[in-house]
Amino acid sequence: MVDNASEQAPKAISRAIVLLSGGLDSTTVMAMAQQQGYALYALSFAYGQRHTTELAAAARVAKQYSVVDHQIVNIDLRQFGGSALTDDSIAVPKGRDEAQMGEGIPITYVPARNTIFLSYALAWAEVLKANAIFVGVNAVDYSGYPDCRPEFITAFESMANLATQLGTENEGVKILAPLQYMSKAQIVQTGIELGVDYAQTNSCYDPADNGKPCGECDACQLRIAGFEQAGMRDPLLATFD
Amino acid sequence: MVDNASEQAPKAISRAIVLLSGGLDSTTVMAMAQQQGYALYALSFAYGQRHTTELAAAARVAKQYSVVDHQIVNIDLRQFGGSALTDDSIAVPKGRDEAQMGEGIPITYVPARNTIFLSYALAWAEVLKANAIFVGVNAVDYSGYPDCRPEFITAFESMANLATQLGTENEGVKILAPLQYMSKAQIVQTGIELGVDYAQTNSCYDPADNGKPCGECDACQLRIAGFEQAGMRDPLLATFD
Repeated sequence: MVDNASEQAPKAISRAIVLLSGGLDSTTVMAMAQQQGYALYALSFAYGQRHTTELAAAARVAKQYSVVDHQIVNIDLRQFGGSALTDDSIAVPKGRDEAQMGEGIPITYVPARNTIFLSYALAWAEVLKANAIFVGVNAVDYSGYPDCRPEFITAFESMANLATQLGTENEGVKILAPLQYMSKAQIVQTGIELGVDYAQTNSCYDPADNGKPCGECDACQLRIAGFEQAGMRDPLLATFD
Repeated sequence: MVDNASEQAPKAISRAIVLLSGGLDSTTVMAMAQQQGYALYALSFAYGQRHTTELAAAARVAKQYSVVDHQIVNIDLRQFGGSALTDDSIAVPKGRDEAQMGEGIPITYVPARNTIFLSYALAWAEVLKANAIFVGVNAVDYSGYPDCRPEFITAFESMANLATQLGTENEGVKILAPLQYMSKAQIVQTGIELGVDYAQTNSCYDPADNGKPCGECDACQLRIAGFEQAGMRDPLLATFD
């Protein structure tokens, strides 16, 4: 043992909260946060979504990445209505092409969802003194969602640092959205390089009871196209062959 | 009837969401929003607070102001811990003087609470196409809470307009904090002028089961001092005489 080395204080491992839906994007983000050496805390939401398959996937992914803690917050966004993902009276659109997906704000948009999700992450970050919140938003594929845009993420980070002790008395909190400018194919490629097991993930807005993706909603179509462009078959589909 | 007048489209009444705890501040804000001619929507939270007396007061006030709708959102901030108001293992401080209250961030601070509250208000505003969210934060009396500062409110408003369809496709949403620079005495005076019945409100962090305020927590002391400086006795106290 060298004395100098033993006298050095061990470098504290920074904590990061990862918003985890158990989908392709957030699982890739989890792998990226792990690679950056953070102690991982997963945060998922039960928000009256039709697809509780999502939470089962989130639990599998959290376990696979040995997170320190996985919290599932119950929030009822159905209370306000206004989205096909939380309001049973609005149908999930199927079979739209990319041009249609690019038009305006889709009906699957949940009002202020990412703002609410990030606000809870901020509350937990404040308690944990975590300096990073990872979120899998993606400006390329979901251009219709205002709360997936880079300027929203930047504005949320500024607000977050004014809202908290983290920002006013400590070193602050970063909102990290590493998929922001990546195509779905680039996300898949990045995940594959990091060893992500995509068979454990779920992206579908309207899966069957056994978890089989519908193949036709916007999320399915984007996922299928992403794997195709990456020159692969989605390993999730093999589990239903 | 003058034809010109009957041809004019009726001026649409703007909708406002008012964050309503049923306390002195938020009730005064409700009266101010009413005076400004908004259609009122009250939003309250059941957040694992020790004082459910708060929600009973909120319901009384919402009724008194004939709000169009009063939503109570269940959110469990106990899940993350870290505050005397939501964590049963932390005591509510009593008998502190103003100098002590002014020191640092108080233990009654709930991490990111106003961020979470405003995020839900934003979601509802998006669905209702409401253009204003009223919040009773006050920078003078609660200087220790980072999320009561004017710069936080401004940053939240910027973020909110980037986060939503309201901001990107419509006329935008304002976060209005009319008490921001008022002393407690000024708030009481304003409310009295607007006819607020403060006997219906509750401010105490730790009231008795019958709703009687403890008289010693920070909120009680600020309220008592506010009425004293306004030259009045708190009408709530008369109900327990």
